[in-house]
Amino acid sequence: MQTIAAANKSIKSAQLRVTRRSPAYWRVTFDNPPINVMGPEMVRQFQEVINTLEADEHVKVVVFDSAVDNYFLNHSDFMAKLEDLTSMPAGPTGLPPWPDFLVRLTRLPVVSIALIRGRATGNGSEITLACDMSFASREKAILSQWEVGVGMVPGGGPMARLPQLIGRNRALEVGQSGHDIRGDQAEAYGYVNRALPDAELDAFVDALATRISGFDKWAIATTKRLVNTSLPPDVELGAGWDACIASLGRPAAQDSIKALIARGFHKPGDVENRLGYYVGQLGA
Amino acid sequence: MQTIAAANKSIKSAQLRVTRRSPAYWRVTFDNPPINVMGPEMVRQFQEVINTLEADEHVKVVVFDSAVDNYFLNHSDFMAKLEDLTSMPAGPTGLPPWPDFLVRLTRLPVVSIALIRGRATGNGSEITLACDMSFASREKAILSQWEVGVGMVPGGGPMARLPQLIGRNRALEVGQSGHDIRGDQAEAYGYVNRALPDAELDAFVDALATRISGFDKWAIATTKRLVNTSLPPDVELGAGWDACIASLGRPAAQDSIKALIARGFHKPGDVENRLGYYVGQLGA
Amino acid sequence: MQTIAAANKSIKSAQLRVTRRSPAYWRVTFDNPPINVMGPEMVRQFQEVINTLEADEHVKVVVFDSAVDNYFLNHSDFMAKLEDLTSMPAGPTGLPPWPDFLVRLTRLPVVSIALIRGRATGNGSEITLACDMSFASREKAILSQWEVGVGMVPGGGPMARLPQLIGRNRALEVGQSGHDIRGDQAEAYGYVNRALPDAELDAFVDALATRISGFDKWAIATTKRLVNTSLPPDVELGAGWDACIASLGRPAAQDSIKALIARGFHKPGDVENRLGYYVGQLGA
Repeated sequence: MQTIAAANKSIKSAQLRVTRRSPAYWRVTFDNPPINVMGPEMVRQFQEVINTLEADEHVKVVVFDSAVDNYFLNHSDFMAKLEDLTSMPAGPTGLPPWPDFLVRLTRLPVVSIALIRGRATGNGSEITLACDMSFASREKAILSQWEVGVGMVPGGGPMARLPQLIGRNRALEVGQSGHDIRGDQAEAYGYVNRALPDAELDAFVDALATRISGFDKWAIATTKRLVNTSLPPDVELGAGWDACIASLGRPAAQDSIKALIARGFHKPGDVENRLGYYVGQLGA
Repeated sequence: MQTIAAANKSIKSAQLRVTRRSPAYWRVTFDNPPINVMGPEMVRQFQEVINTLEADEHVKVVVFDSAVDNYFLNHSDFMAKLEDLTSMPAGPTGLPPWPDFLVRLTRLPVVSIALIRGRATGNGSEITLACDMSFASREKAILSQWEVGVGMVPGGGPMARLPQLIGRNRALEVGQSGHDIRGDQAEAYGYVNRALPDAELDAFVDALATRISGFDKWAIATTKRLVNTSLPPDVELGAGWDACIASLGRPAAQDSIKALIARGFHKPGDVENRLGYYVGQLGA
Repeated sequence: MQTIAAANKSIKSAQLRVTRRSPAYWRVTFDNPPINVMGPEMVRQFQEVINTLEADEHVKVVVFDSAVDNYFLNHSDFMAKLEDLTSMPAGPTGLPPWPDFLVRLTRLPVVSIALIRGRATGNGSEITLACDMSFASREKAILSQWEVGVGMVPGGGPMARLPQLIGRNRALEVGQSGHDIRGDQAEAYGYVNRALPDAELDAFVDALATRISGFDKWAIATTKRLVNTSLPPDVELGAGWDACIASLGRPAAQDSIKALIARGFHKPGDVENRLGYYVGQLGA
């Protein structure tokens, strides 16, 4: 195994680690302890990752997983300067870097799989929805789009993707309630492909990825391209991103996030563990 | 609490009762005993309700429920004069009043929730499909689109909405079989968000509505607007309505409805309780 | 009961048997033992069947089932000459005969039901997805799109239809893994309407078909026409077919199919019984 980080100074303290289990089967591991938030630096590294994946002729399957206990990929980093994010140049799709990454991931001629253990809130849910498949720990996965609960709008496309995946009614429940969704419920709704017992999850995903890595890349890519007629237009991702950034400038979001931080948000502890519950207490 | 009816003579004997639990959280209660059919007067009151909801700046969530035992919202009133319905002016969308109401409900910058206890047949299913979310009594909810079973075509958009929600195969099963669908099956198909034990249903919906009523209206409305790109075009609702009215003029529907009434349809009793069964006996 | 075959020399040794249980309720039975593969002759007979169904004024419901133990409808006949298939004239939709049949089946003013017992791989899955409804044996049904596992692309539209039915994530799992999907899993994913205990399947489907055959044909057809706005464009089926034929000309597919035949594929036995497993061994 070899990591890109080792060969690339600029991501020496990589928040994303790319590991080649074989030329055809890669892993991208989220590693920004203690709670795997996504700030501007991680967004930049997502751009590097997708550039690398697009340029490689051999990769057929990529698994996204986490090195941080209890967190798959979490909400944005509210301690970072917003300008560091909004000043980043658009990606090749013309979209800002995060929606650009998500759109390119859906179009990549490579099978992408989310292996979800721990909290997948906001960005973690959005990358799940951009992956081709997702498998969640029955005991340890939590998915959510919590944004409306703090006066925000999600920025990575769940409004565009969830109705097609789980129906408008459940998509609106996820988005308007901001509730934490456990593995079983996520499976019942079709939010993830399947929820598996935590002890079986790694072996299941590894076997599936290994299996697919033995298939023909042209057949994989051609089949996926034909499935992709069902993708929402890119502009919908752009509209969601713009609404998200606009929401961050409003007092409703500023006040809610401040109040949540005062209660212990943004560091390991009960607020992060039961974010759905605490979001519901803000307006009470 | 205050009801619109109290302040509005014209709906003194209101078939729809609007109750403000708070400025942000409203209830609309169907109350046309004994079997909650929908006739022209109720359609007119639905127009008033949606006008009121659209005009209010404070409402964030509206729950639709029933005051009539065993009936959420039922099929149309076949004792009413069809002309009283077809002569009503089109609504602001250009559609006749019932599809106009349903389309505007889906676009309303307010979260709408159906609390389903008892029969939700025809119109009751259609308003469920136009709501943002729906929660059904596991023991007491029955959903159905029974129309094809009596030679009719549904007029409130299930052909446009159900395939996106539960897949074309299950949408056609619902629509072409005319079967009664119990709470468990409705949940398994994704026809409703969830089925809950009857004893827990009211508290669950109330907690969810109360929670959402504490969130920011701009964030709710903006998120919903972005989800709404997945709505079917209004013209599909119009086409369904036209087909429904056309079907009512055909002998197949006239004869079937007459035969069903002869067996006890349109009043409390076994035919209404087991409508799916009796519809299947007509052609036998 | 009367069969078309009896009155039609050209399909004397019919691989498809059409039986009229009543003028309104027909059965089409796949009967190409020992493993119900689909070759050019069966494709030709599918064209005859759809022509007959379209021309008949009385038929309201058609059930597709199998006369061959353990096989509903299987992958293509790799012993047949490809030219016999590719030289067939396009159907009325302008598409080659197999996608032409599938598209016309979805548009037929008749309810179509797949009764699935045994393997429904490739073509068997594709006809299931083109039917209005499908009911599977819990113990004996196996659905799969195995093509990518042998370097092929499916030719009958699953890329166009599955994402709408079961979501993009599960559609890609089905298509990119090539796994065998059992009845329970197919039901949980919404790939079929329901899985039923094998002992109850025939009676359930017969009762449903008999029920619908008593309904009004105009109401059935009009309702279905309005549901059909959700169908993917025909050109997507054409694009899938073209990709399938192209894939067959590539060494990846030629070599894989040859290797699989060497292990016992294409005749009754363990490779056909556990095709998903054996496909996964090819690249290992």
